[in-house]
Amino acid sequence: MGPDAASAVDAGAYLERWAARAEEELGRRVPERGAEPAEMYRIMRYSLFAGGKRLRPVLCAAGAEAVGADPEIVLPAACALECIHTYSLVHDDLPAMDDDDLRRGVPTSHKVHGEGAAILAGDGLLTLAFGLMADGEMARRAGPERVIEGVRMLAGAAGASGMVGGQLLDIRAGGKVSGPRELEEIHRRKTGAMIRCSVCLGGLLGGGSQEAMAALARYGERAGLAFQIVDDILNVEGSPEQLGKAAGSDAAHGKATYPALHGLEASKRLAREACEEALAALSPLPGGGPALAALARFIVLRRS
Amino acid sequence: MGPDAASAVDAGAYLERWAARAEEELGRRVPERGAEPAEMYRIMRYSLFAGGKRLRPVLCAAGAEAVGADPEIVLPAACALECIHTYSLVHDDLPAMDDDDLRRGVPTSHKVHGEGAAILAGDGLLTLAFGLMADGEMARRAGPERVIEGVRMLAGAAGASGMVGGQLLDIRAGGKVSGPRELEEIHRRKTGAMIRCSVCLGGLLGGGSQEAMAALARYGERAGLAFQIVDDILNVEGSPEQLGKAAGSDAAHGKATYPALHGLEASKRLAREACEEALAALSPLPGGGPALAALARFIVLRRS
Repeated sequence: MGPDAASAVDAGAYLERWAARAEEELGRRVPERGAEPAEMYRIMRYSLFAGGKRLRPVLCAAGAEAVGADPEIVLPAACALECIHTYSLVHDDLPAMDDDDLRRGVPTSHKVHGEGAAILAGDGLLTLAFGLMADGEMARRAGPERVIEGVRMLAGAAGASGMVGGQLLDIRAGGKVSGPRELEEIHRRKTGAMIRCSVCLGGLLGGGSQEAMAALARYGERAGLAFQIVDDILNVEGSPEQLGKAAGSDAAHGKATYPALHGLEASKRLAREACEEALAALSPLPGGGPALAALARFIVLRRS
Repeated sequence: MGPDAASAVDAGAYLERWAARAEEELGRRVPERGAEPAEMYRIMRYSLFAGGKRLRPVLCAAGAEAVGADPEIVLPAACALECIHTYSLVHDDLPAMDDDDLRRGVPTSHKVHGEGAAILAGDGLLTLAFGLMADGEMARRAGPERVIEGVRMLAGAAGASGMVGGQLLDIRAGGKVSGPRELEEIHRRKTGAMIRCSVCLGGLLGGGSQEAMAALARYGERAGLAFQIVDDILNVEGSPEQLGKAAGSDAAHGKATYPALHGLEASKRLAREACEEALAALSPLPGGGPALAALARFIVLRRS
C-alpha cells in the first residue's frame, strides 16, 4: 500500500479518537482534586484543558501505529508531548516574551493567575512530561532501553538546541530575520523539532526498526515545516473565531513569517510541497502509514 | 563503623572533589562553543558557572558511595540535580517572583540577559537535566530500570508536588504563613524534596537495597530541613560578602523564615536537632555513610 491507499483513514475521526484518549490520561495525571498543592494543579489544568487540538499526542499515536504497535502503549509519551507543548505556550505568552492576552479565545494563564504562577505552571508541566516518560507500565511494554532513548530524544527536541533555543532566536530576531534560511532555522527548532519528535517517539516506543525511524524522521520534518507555514498563513487569513485571537497578530507584532517573506501564494505552494514530501517519506513503512498520511493532509487543509 | 568513625571524612575536601567532577561534566554538556544556538548555551552557562557550592551533586555522589558504588557512575544524575537547582534560582529571581538583582554577588540572569531569555535559560536547564538522566553510559552501568525509576523520582521532587509547588505556596503566602506547619510544608516541598532526592538518587543509581534507600530518604529529609533552617539563619546573621547579596533580605521582603517564627536561638537548636536525626538515620548503612555524615555536619556549620 502506498500513500494513496493511506488516504482511507479519516483524519478528523483519528484525531478525535486519540485526542480523547490523551485527554483522559492527562486528566488522570493532573487531577482536579486530590493532588497537592491544589492551586498548582488547578493552574496547570487551566492551560492543559483549554481546547488544544492534541496534534502532537495524535502524531505520536500514529507513529506507533505506523510501525505496527498499539498506540495505547505510547500514551504516556503522547501526554508528555502535550505537556511540553502546553508549557511552551504558557511561557511564550508571558509579557517578557510574546505578551499575549488571549490564547484559544480565553485569557492567557498569566492574565488569570499572575506571571509568577504562570511561569511555575509551565515549569510544572515541563517536569511532569518527564515524569510521564518514566511511566512504569510504558517501560515494561516498550522496553526500558527504548524509554531512555525516548527521554533523550524528547529532551533534545524540547531543549536548548530545539524548541527553547528556537524561541530565543525568535525573540532575539524580533521579526527582523535576515532571510529564508534564518526563518527556517527558527521554525525548525521552535516548532519543527517537537513535531518531528512526536512522530519519532511513537515509532521508537512502538518498537520501530532503524529504517522505519528514518522514514518517520523525514516525514516529521516535512510535516512540521508544512504545519508552521500553514500556521503563518492562518494568522493572516483566519478569522478571530478560528484563531482564538486577533487575526494578523504576527504582522502587528512585526513577526517574521512565511507570508511576510515569500508572499501568500508562494507560502501556500511551499506548504503543499512540504506535505507531498512528507507523504513520499512514508513509502518505506510496511503499511504505508495511512494515519500519518491523513494527518499530513489535515495539517495543510486545516482552518484553525 | 557508626556515625563517629564517619567524621573521619573531611567534608570540605569531599565537597571540593566532587564539585570539581560535576563542574567538569557540566562544562562538557553545556560547552562554551560548538553548541547552537550559541547565545542559548552562553546564558545557561552564566548561571551554571556562577560559583554554586554544588551541594546537590555532592550529596548524590555521597549517596552512591554510601551504598558501596563508585560515584563516577551517577555523575550525569549529579549534574542533572545541579541543572534543576540552577534553573530554579534563575526563575525564582525573576521580577514576577522574588525580584532579586543579585545572586552570589553578581547580577541575576534576567538583569543581564533580559527576562525572556532568563525564563528560556531556566527552561533549557530543566530540560537538559532530563537529557542528562538519559545518559547511555549511566543506563548501562546503573541499569535502565533504575534510571527510569530515577527519572520518576527526580520529576516528583522537582515538579508540581515538590519544588515547583513549594515555590507557588511561597509566593502565595507572601511571608504571611499561618504557623510552623505551613512554613515546614513550604520548605519541605521547595528545598527539602530536592535535597532528599539528591541523596536518594545517588543511592538508587548506585544499586542500594530497599533498606538502604529508606535510610537515605530519612537522612535526606532531616539534612534538608537542617539546610533550610541554616539558610534562614545565615540570611539574618551573614555578611553580604558571605551571602552574595544584602543580609536581612528575607526580613526586608517580609518572608516567613525559621528565625522570624521561632527566634534565632530556637532556630539554631532546631537545626542541630535535625542534623543529629540525619546522622542517626545513617546507622543501617553498612559503612555508616561517612561522607554523608560529614556533609550533614558541614551543612549546619557552614557560613555561606
